[in-house]
Amino acid sequence: MTQPTALDVALAYHRAWTGHDFEAAMQYVADDIVCLAPAGSIEGAEAFRGFMEPFSKILLDSLVVAAYGDESTALLMYETRTVPVADAPAAEMLTVEDGRITQLRIIFDRLPFTEARAANAS
Amino acid sequence: MTQPTALDVALAYHRAWTGHDFEAAMQYVADDIVCLAPAGSIEGAEAFRGFMEPFSKILLDSLVVAAYGDESTALLMYETRTVPVADAPAAEMLTVEDGRITQLRIIFDRLPFTEARAANAS
Repeated sequence: MTQPTALDVALAYHRAWTGHDFEAAMQYVADDIVCLAPAGSIEGAEAFRGFMEPFSKILLDSLVVAAYGDESTALLMYETRTVPVADAPAAEMLTVEDGRITQLRIIFDRLPFTEARAANAS
Repeated sequence: MTQPTALDVALAYHRAWTGHDFEAAMQYVADDIVCLAPAGSIEGAEAFRGFMEPFSKILLDSLVVAAYGDESTALLMYETRTVPVADAPAAEMLTVEDGRITQLRIIFDRLPFTEARAANAS
């Protein structure tokens, strides 16, 4: 069996979580994943799930606008439409070992989410 | 002369602006550039300069962590260290035509910059 490339794994993970199948998404996540997120570092699969699964629940849909990779690394940029924020693009750099994501660095703009929460609370 | 790839142009642009040579950076920018930034769309080279040059002035240094591309498109992720925010990573998708950037989509987290401004004002 051919080993999937880092990009295959990154796109399969993206399809799963944006398709609201977080169980399937977690199959691509290494137990010892390290996620570098805007608010800081998140370590381990359960903590990672606690970060990403709530986001997947407010997601309406997502479109990948660019996706590249090599043997060990993939780089994605995608749009998301979410319940609180209509246009929330993100970029991810994923390191993949043995078919699982061991590091995921995610960049997105937290400001509109913070503003949406503040507007909701007022 | 071989036409530079989109990635060549993207990296040359990145080296120039992060090296505080904004004149050199502007040589890679098309007159009719469209920049999709977190706060909205910026059209034309002068407006683009008004957006990016002030950021280049608060930049201390930058490190490219991933860079890919094909004929027309490049995708970069990089770290920046800036005066107000110590760790401000960004991702850019650049469309290049005839050696110049015609579209630049940039993603970064505005929240720490907003917080730094608020802390400065108080």
